[in-house]
Amino acid sequence: MEQVKVSLNEKDIPKQWYNIAADLPSPPLPPLGPDGNPISPDMLAPVFPMNLIEQEVSSQRWIDIPAEILDILYRWRPAPLRRAKYLERYLGTPAKIYFKDESVSPGGSHKPNTAVAQAWYNKQFGIERLTTETGAGQWGCALAFACSLLGLECKVFMVRISFDQKPFRKLMMQVWGANCVASPSNETNAGRTILAKVPDTPGSLGIAISEAIEQAVCDPAGKTRYALGSVLNHVLLHQTIIGLEARAQLKSVGIDKPDVVIGCAGGGSNFAGLAFPFTADKINGADIKIIPVEPTACPTLTRAPFAYDFGDTACTTPLMAMHSLGHDFVPPPIHAGGLRYHGMAPLVCQCVVEGLHTPRAIDQVECYEAALTWARTEGFICAPETSHAVACAIQEAKKAKEEGKEKVILFNYSGHGLMDLTGYDAFLSGKLVPYELPDSELEKAEACLKNHPRAEKRKTGRW
Amino acid sequence: MEQVKVSLNEKDIPKQWYNIAADLPSPPLPPLGPDGNPISPDMLAPVFPMNLIEQEVSSQRWIDIPAEILDILYRWRPAPLRRAKYLERYLGTPAKIYFKDESVSPGGSHKPNTAVAQAWYNKQFGIERLTTETGAGQWGCALAFACSLLGLECKVFMVRISFDQKPFRKLMMQVWGANCVASPSNETNAGRTILAKVPDTPGSLGIAISEAIEQAVCDPAGKTRYALGSVLNHVLLHQTIIGLEARAQLKSVGIDKPDVVIGCAGGGSNFAGLAFPFTADKINGADIKIIPVEPTACPTLTRAPFAYDFGDTACTTPLMAMHSLGHDFVPPPIHAGGLRYHGMAPLVCQCVVEGLHTPRAIDQVECYEAALTWARTEGFICAPETSHAVACAIQEAKKAKEEGKEKVILFNYSGHGLMDLTGYDAFLSGKLVPYELPDSELEKAEACLKNHPRAEKRKTGRW
Repeated sequence: MEQVKVSLNEKDIPKQWYNIAADLPSPPLPPLGPDGNPISPDMLAPVFPMNLIEQEVSSQRWIDIPAEILDILYRWRPAPLRRAKYLERYLGTPAKIYFKDESVSPGGSHKPNTAVAQAWYNKQFGIERLTTETGAGQWGCALAFACSLLGLECKVFMVRISFDQKPFRKLMMQVWGANCVASPSNETNAGRTILAKVPDTPGSLGIAISEAIEQAVCDPAGKTRYALGSVLNHVLLHQTIIGLEARAQLKSVGIDKPDVVIGCAGGGSNFAGLAFPFTADKINGADIKIIPVEPTACPTLTRAPFAYDFGDTACTTPLMAMHSLGHDFVPPPIHAGGLRYHGMAPLVCQCVVEGLHTPRAIDQVECYEAALTWARTEGFICAPETSHAVACAIQEAKKAKEEGKEKVILFNYSGHGLMDLTGYDAFLSGKLVPYELPDSELEKAEACLKNHPRAEKRKTGRW
Repeated sequence: MEQVKVSLNEKDIPKQWYNIAADLPSPPLPPLGPDGNPISPDMLAPVFPMNLIEQEVSSQRWIDIPAEILDILYRWRPAPLRRAKYLERYLGTPAKIYFKDESVSPGGSHKPNTAVAQAWYNKQFGIERLTTETGAGQWGCALAFACSLLGLECKVFMVRISFDQKPFRKLMMQVWGANCVASPSNETNAGRTILAKVPDTPGSLGIAISEAIEQAVCDPAGKTRYALGSVLNHVLLHQTIIGLEARAQLKSVGIDKPDVVIGCAGGGSNFAGLAFPFTADKINGADIKIIPVEPTACPTLTRAPFAYDFGDTACTTPLMAMHSLGHDFVPPPIHAGGLRYHGMAPLVCQCVVEGLHTPRAIDQVECYEAALTWARTEGFICAPETSHAVACAIQEAKKAKEEGKEKVILFNYSGHGLMDLTGYDAFLSGKLVPYELPDSELEKAEACLKNHPRAEKRKTGRW
């Protein structure tokens, strides 16, 4: 019998995170302040605790994972690496398809990996309360869970339309003791201002971020900070435990390296978490194709300009060098809510600029077809975001069949879809249509970005 | 570091199910037909395939698990055994609390263990279509999943009120290709009759069973059968893989036997799945306390008469010797939908009569308190049914603390609660009240049962 599940013993859990900033051939461009000059760590201090800011700007290759954080992660980590042998059979492919199962966490996705770390570092720094925003609810749940275990207060601003449409996500946060309110709310200046103008607004991630940051920086006692679920360097760092575990698990079944590594990419954290350790191997000479997958409806890496842009709609963050559809981009209402971000993690963007990563866009209809094939072969129901990785793995497995090659394909199964079944409903009832972003949207992006400092494409040309 | 997760290698998965009928000191009473005489296997043939009927009446101790069934179970089995060390710390108990994690299956509970086996045996027998009923949706999902993998048609009659209140459960079934309709439906005589009388009926499990059985037995081609998710001997048999795995996992960490074994009990299948292998050890002399836990609102084992009764409200099944609140019992609307059954698996009842199992009833408010403690220590959100097992484990752990004893407590974590969060909402908002079944309901039960053949309490008096 072929082994389906590859476990890793608790004692073999990675004890350090991997920081790709130490190894990038051409380092990413620094974030800029409103004056166009690189920002100093101090400028982030009202928003984040200094120990996380140090991680954000660190160029140290390996950073120790505190034992107390590991003690929390053991609830579900090491996560299983599984072989999708039932899908392989169905496709008749000679490829071996492995997936790292991040759906086994309490929140059902990879998000708790960084939520736990961020909550722990905040607590170490003397912080008593965290604020954040959430769209679909995955990140809000993860932070609620982490704060619950660490005894921190947690305040989540949930985009009004999701708050109303997804009551179960809100309930999950409440089970973990978090205070989840619809955004815009009456609790912040930002929220009150919007509500005065548009009382029945559905809200947006941009508004929710503004509310969360306002509550963090305005705490007179200075005991509140803000937490972000993706994009930033320290968030990606915390997620590298995924790839480090996967690498050890593959080696334990005699696989020295995968041929293809795949992850869906919205802000970039689950993709980077799996891909960065293998990217290091690629920098050191290994032949690995590394693919971040995004929706054709939000083609940041595949079509958007590489430019300096704000991370949020309200222009409160520093300017970051990244592929961006413009901070005022209004993404189409696709079901993969986690992949509707206008930008992308700068570290991932730099890997794309360097040629280390080969991005791919896949339409949501093909993704749901893949998700259905997955559910009816492997048996599990994946998240709408994760379906992009599944679809790409199927493309690569079919290619291996055409080429007659015994490739090893590895992808990140970033989360289950049990809280997000309405997209399946739309697909099964034939209401889902393909969506290709029109060129006019890219022209709008250029217009949005034209007054920002130019971002130089640094590349060594080695890949 | 203390080990939290105890894995079992795929190659060590149990290859046989354990049939407790071979070892019961006093065998359970046979099911009776409408004439009051024991039924013959043939009488079940229109409803179930003969290979499953043979399992139903078998007294063979070990029954081989076909390799094709194992090949499907490997998607999530062996399931992890975990140690609840975070709960232990919180309680300050010297007890070691282990739980068998059945929430990791595609359907999120133990139900797929038997759904896969039943679908496989039906397919072997030449059956092309299975019908069933579902209340909360857990069983309908499990059978939809199993039929999807085995290429069988699946028709699920879902109680109307749940169909309307739990659209996500229906969507899960549809993802797996099942046809899920609200019951009563216009597709059966039973359904049409009820709808003609009460057009706006919320439906009931009794009606849904009648519809499912009618569609199975009325297939002119004879290619349809009915599948049941609990109560019957062969269903409990398929679930014993849970206890057999758990026993091997405990031994792998040096624990020869647990001191306490706990499972919530509605129809009895998840409890029996964990408990029966340990019950065999108890019959052979091991000192183990084995506790089926039920709600105080539906106290079948703790308060109901032991009598011959029908398995369904519509009186279409044979009469079974069991603890029963009467087939016309209308259970209070507690949130643990899976624990609202009027009867109990005859094999479990016989163990209780013998004194091998020590049933306990716990109120739903205490159960939700336990579930919240669980979510905020262990991190995971359990099903309302499972919360009864958690509450009992906490009671036992506190007792061990009082006694200063280092007991090993094992319970079945039968499912996650992600699809059933409304009960948490009621609890958190203070709307949940304790519910003790009034004595008048037991008088009603006696009245309901008075015309049935008497069920003799067979016991050896050894426990």
